[in-house]
Amino acid sequence: MLLPNEEIRFTGGDNLNLDRIFKAESIAVIGASKNEAKQGYKALARLVEGRYEGRIYPVNPKEKTILGLKCYHSVLDVPGDIDLALITTPAHTVETIIEQLGKKGTVGAVVIAAGFGEVGDEGKLFEEEIIKLANENGIRIIGPNTPGIIVIEKDLNLVGLTNVPEGNIALLTQSGNIALNLITEANLKSQTGFNYYVGVGNEADIKFHEYLEYFSEDPDTKVILMYVEGLREGRRFLQEASKTTQVKPVVLYKSGRSVKGSKSAGSHTGALAGISEVSKSAFKRAGVFEVNNPGEMFPVAETLALLPMLKDDSIAILADGGGHATIAADYLTDLGIKLPELTSETRDKLAAILPDNASLDNPVDVAGGTDRDPTIFADCAKILLNDENIQGLLIVGLFGGYGIRFAKNLSYMEEDAAHRLGKLMEKMQKPIMLFSLYDYARPHSLELLRYYNIPVYDSLEIACKCMEALSAYGSYLREYDKEGNFQLNWRFGVIPGGQNIIDTALAEGRNVLLEYEARELFRLHGAPVTPDYLATSADEAVTCAEELGYNVAMKIASPDILHKSKAKGVMLGLNDEPAVREAFHKIISNCNQKYPEADIKGCLLTNMSKKGIETVVGMKTDDQFGPTIMFGLGGIMVSVMKDVSFQVVPVSEYWAKVMIDEIKSSVIFEGFRGRPPSDKDAIAKLILTVSEVAQAYPQIKEIDLNPVIVHDQGLTIVDARVILKSADCR
Amino acid sequence: MLLPNEEIRFTGGDNLNLDRIFKAESIAVIGASKNEAKQGYKALARLVEGRYEGRIYPVNPKEKTILGLKCYHSVLDVPGDIDLALITTPAHTVETIIEQLGKKGTVGAVVIAAGFGEVGDEGKLFEEEIIKLANENGIRIIGPNTPGIIVIEKDLNLVGLTNVPEGNIALLTQSGNIALNLITEANLKSQTGFNYYVGVGNEADIKFHEYLEYFSEDPDTKVILMYVEGLREGRRFLQEASKTTQVKPVVLYKSGRSVKGSKSAGSHTGALAGISEVSKSAFKRAGVFEVNNPGEMFPVAETLALLPMLKDDSIAILADGGGHATIAADYLTDLGIKLPELTSETRDKLAAILPDNASLDNPVDVAGGTDRDPTIFADCAKILLNDENIQGLLIVGLFGGYGIRFAKNLSYMEEDAAHRLGKLMEKMQKPIMLFSLYDYARPHSLELLRYYNIPVYDSLEIACKCMEALSAYGSYLREYDKEGNFQLNWRFGVIPGGQNIIDTALAEGRNVLLEYEARELFRLHGAPVTPDYLATSADEAVTCAEELGYNVAMKIASPDILHKSKAKGVMLGLNDEPAVREAFHKIISNCNQKYPEADIKGCLLTNMSKKGIETVVGMKTDDQFGPTIMFGLGGIMVSVMKDVSFQVVPVSEYWAKVMIDEIKSSVIFEGFRGRPPSDKDAIAKLILTVSEVAQAYPQIKEIDLNPVIVHDQGLTIVDARVILKSADCR
Repeated sequence: MLLPNEEIRFTGGDNLNLDRIFKAESIAVIGASKNEAKQGYKALARLVEGRYEGRIYPVNPKEKTILGLKCYHSVLDVPGDIDLALITTPAHTVETIIEQLGKKGTVGAVVIAAGFGEVGDEGKLFEEEIIKLANENGIRIIGPNTPGIIVIEKDLNLVGLTNVPEGNIALLTQSGNIALNLITEANLKSQTGFNYYVGVGNEADIKFHEYLEYFSEDPDTKVILMYVEGLREGRRFLQEASKTTQVKPVVLYKSGRSVKGSKSAGSHTGALAGISEVSKSAFKRAGVFEVNNPGEMFPVAETLALLPMLKDDSIAILADGGGHATIAADYLTDLGIKLPELTSETRDKLAAILPDNASLDNPVDVAGGTDRDPTIFADCAKILLNDENIQGLLIVGLFGGYGIRFAKNLSYMEEDAAHRLGKLMEKMQKPIMLFSLYDYARPHSLELLRYYNIPVYDSLEIACKCMEALSAYGSYLREYDKEGNFQLNWRFGVIPGGQNIIDTALAEGRNVLLEYEARELFRLHGAPVTPDYLATSADEAVTCAEELGYNVAMKIASPDILHKSKAKGVMLGLNDEPAVREAFHKIISNCNQKYPEADIKGCLLTNMSKKGIETVVGMKTDDQFGPTIMFGLGGIMVSVMKDVSFQVVPVSEYWAKVMIDEIKSSVIFEGFRGRPPSDKDAIAKLILTVSEVAQAYPQIKEIDLNPVIVHDQGLTIVDARVILKSADCR
Repeated sequence: MLLPNEEIRFTGGDNLNLDRIFKAESIAVIGASKNEAKQGYKALARLVEGRYEGRIYPVNPKEKTILGLKCYHSVLDVPGDIDLALITTPAHTVETIIEQLGKKGTVGAVVIAAGFGEVGDEGKLFEEEIIKLANENGIRIIGPNTPGIIVIEKDLNLVGLTNVPEGNIALLTQSGNIALNLITEANLKSQTGFNYYVGVGNEADIKFHEYLEYFSEDPDTKVILMYVEGLREGRRFLQEASKTTQVKPVVLYKSGRSVKGSKSAGSHTGALAGISEVSKSAFKRAGVFEVNNPGEMFPVAETLALLPMLKDDSIAILADGGGHATIAADYLTDLGIKLPELTSETRDKLAAILPDNASLDNPVDVAGGTDRDPTIFADCAKILLNDENIQGLLIVGLFGGYGIRFAKNLSYMEEDAAHRLGKLMEKMQKPIMLFSLYDYARPHSLELLRYYNIPVYDSLEIACKCMEALSAYGSYLREYDKEGNFQLNWRFGVIPGGQNIIDTALAEGRNVLLEYEARELFRLHGAPVTPDYLATSADEAVTCAEELGYNVAMKIASPDILHKSKAKGVMLGLNDEPAVREAFHKIISNCNQKYPEADIKGCLLTNMSKKGIETVVGMKTDDQFGPTIMFGLGGIMVSVMKDVSFQVVPVSEYWAKVMIDEIKSSVIFEGFRGRPPSDKDAIAKLILTVSEVAQAYPQIKEIDLNPVIVHDQGLTIVDARVILKSADCR
């Protein structure tokens, strides 16, 4: 088995030149067509009719000209180089075409055909062959199973879609209809749009993180928006994302979390949908803003592209009715946004322009005060944004509909208010956004707001989510933890003694360390492992117990007995010599009886742990992200309540502390029912040690320190279990 | 303090005649106006211009005629009776007007003015006076602080809104702008609408449940849709709702769950927003479908009004792209909807009309198979709904947009498909609904679907929620538990000995029962309370312990010492005579030292409990719903993890079992880590007993049986605490 950093990669590596792909000066459309329904026509038509300035070569052996362009019999007939190829022909033709493109100096090929990795093992093998062939020919593949790419500025549109609105959002997606969804939404509900659209497809060659790196450096891209079914190289993605988010926001929606959804994703893009808890915490640490609902994707990206960030998480709500005010307050509270009290000065100013029954609390309810003059919205907004405690404003309710619902002349007042709100935001550099129930009717006042970069949403929930994104990204930038990178340094921190333990086990054909081996491994790495002794006879056990001091615990030591309790191989609270002697004989006889073939090394003796809070610290190898630390309270809190936190290795001190505080039950560490507070620093240190061990020995697949009893000072590792990747993986 | 069933109610009770209000044959508009911005004009204009056939009396001392109608100086000048009055004048004028209306035989008055219960204690008193006066005059009040009511069929529109779309949904709301929101949405996104709109306002006189009862019996009302900030008579609401939901669905959104939201609700309608966990379980038991998002309100009500119910929770997804298919599968799985495997017959039929790379699993992805012929959607729908395992169909993606996005002639094919889908639903009586990303563009094909009662949504999340509502209401009707009513029979099941214990405590000025009193109370009601003895001396303690058999627990018994452990008044695991003797002296001396003034009755002795799972069974008095049972696991599972279930009293056996199964941690009762399963029947029985005790003695405010140790057979109530409402409440 190969280790992750030793994989032989067919994916081209250094020869990726996305700039030459996205700025291609010559494009061949292979499978160019006169049939208007085919992509070989549509893409060609978009290139011809648009601003695309490079050379265009239709390739089709059956046609002489298409759309006024000379059509070539084959790739080899094209005069001069081909920077980029769009291959719209079926899967079985791709191999020959790639070979031909290799001779034309092509750097990138977009492969539309399905029938590769997403259709099962045979398709996967075929896909790998194609990628290998392409890379050998110096060609990088976008897709396969992709709708293509669009570079708006150049009108380099290989998807063939019309009416893609222009803006500063780079779109990376694993679904053509989600892309169409977002484009349609941008057209209908926004004045902004996209600068790139990349259909990532099966992500067989060029991976998400490679596109991300490009957009990260692209000065025109303000926000990167991603629809992901599964990440082929999750670890590399996190590395790249955590760099990108320091310069621009990344918004992501991940589907495929259910069994049916994950199966659907598999048959769609061949993606392996990962455990959502691990990816959630990993994305968060990388500063990626994950949305929970596809309807939030475009609005959140738009908000982050257009609005100034929130300086802190304190905003005001301005409503023209109690219902929307109440619901918005509920939502924002759920999302951790604060609605501070207004200063008395602010309240006085509002009181001067609003009716007596207006609510001058935050949320502010104008209570009919704007019914005859909606410009009062702008007056209120100015007062609120001038309050030093208020960093942003959410306006909710009917704005935009006064002219429609009540009297036509109110429309003009709404337009006046829109101009003033727009200028106010520009001046104050504090974000303003709206929920309007009249958005669907598209009144002019709302278009004006959008002209001033004030987004308007037709869902209160989505508007609140956008406010959260502004707050979350702002605080990520302020609190970014420099230690929290995702660089795995395999074998960093390896200790010869530790390596020896692992090598011994592997040499003996074992993929599980014995408990005393696991304990020794962690002891070598500085973990507070209490002394233990391996006794091979009852006499030795007594000597050991007296060395340790009573009272002691005794456990069977055998590579063949994993479930020690089940084999009646554990006895606790042994307080004197006869008890130890009896326990030794009993444990050995119990285990001999249950596992007559077992290789019994003896019994392990340790002191009984002091009382404390039972926790679990573990490590497992995630399919997408590699080694991942897990932390939670012991017993049913982990197994039933799933109250667990995850972080991928390596974990920094900052993130170790986040892991402890993140579990719902963490308050019990502060002291519970009269108990003293627990030693959280000791837990954090142990988490760091587990992270270090996982990194030092790539052969380790799983670690389970369970239970770990945390005291008011220090902790006790009661049981330790280490599973290796496989006996032949040294 | 009055008990709930003994409250003196000023709220008119029997003289409510909503039929005469909603079908009023004469209406006075008090505060009628020529100012078009005022409700006194708008309401009058709607009455005059519409189909309203009754007599209309504008009242305004300053005008002679308004809108061609004679205007009266005062109510008393109106000739003949006034069935219903709309009072648009300020709060301070209402008292006089009510007195005058009393003389005109008026049955109902809609009071628009704010400044009552929602503005604080003074406003509340004023509100109570007005209601009392009105009821004495035979008048019931809608509001105050309401936008009014609309009866669509009669064009009885006192709100003054135009363009309220007609349909079969009765709308009950505590917010005018939420109503406007829903009406706007219905106009723009639906072909159905409302038959009633009632602005409930402060709910000061006529309560939610009274309107509910009326709509329940109204044959034209198919669904009742409610926006609630707080229920003034929550218990009566549950009683009425559980009757109503047996004949028609009730959809409800409740806001005010956050501190800020609840404060906003308070200043809006004076509502006391309740604990959302209690209301959630109560609504569910009453068969009310609670939505979590205001954007779901209208769609869910529309779906329930238009579509056949789901026969079970198994549906198919039909998608024209993998992204939407995957997301829909995730959502539906989260909501508990099943996506069964398709039969091989179904798969064969689909394979015959779809391309090779189509996914014939459920979700079905046509993979381009509809690109040139969207009528294939109708073919697929027919095949899917003829599968015996499939009870409903969700179509997701671009349908409606083929003509817009690809080629105009595809629109006609989409329209053809719409007609066929409509007829298919009618024939099969299985629900069909759509998510279309082209809804916002309002293509004709989607209007056609709506004509056939197939709803179309522009949010995938909302479409899935609507499917859940069809499934949930269907299963509620199938599984309705007749025992699960909400009728509180105070004093039912009272036992003289139990009453005596309570009376004694109250007579002694105590509002807490001593532990042995509480134990005796539950013992009298058949709960498995283990024997206990009160010892007043060390000698007695020894006798008691020997009677019980060792080992025993000993606890201080004093009405003045509530926190027994804190006072060092508890000693456990006493195994012999000297231990018992020493413990008695120690406990008495500890408590004397800590509480020198305490009235010490002695020490209570019980057996130590066998091992088992620690649980808590409690009862508390909820502000909105009255006595409510609480159940959860002991320790941090209740206090930190909030893994608790609630049911209002009385609890039936069915709902007691639901309470046990509903907590997340309930799987541990099935046997955990080799333990035997726990006696869930014993827990259910104890819950029933607590419910019975809560009902038998209205003086009880709180019960806390904590911990209750559940064994594989039976359970042990280790500590029991009963708090009474107050010492002067007999």
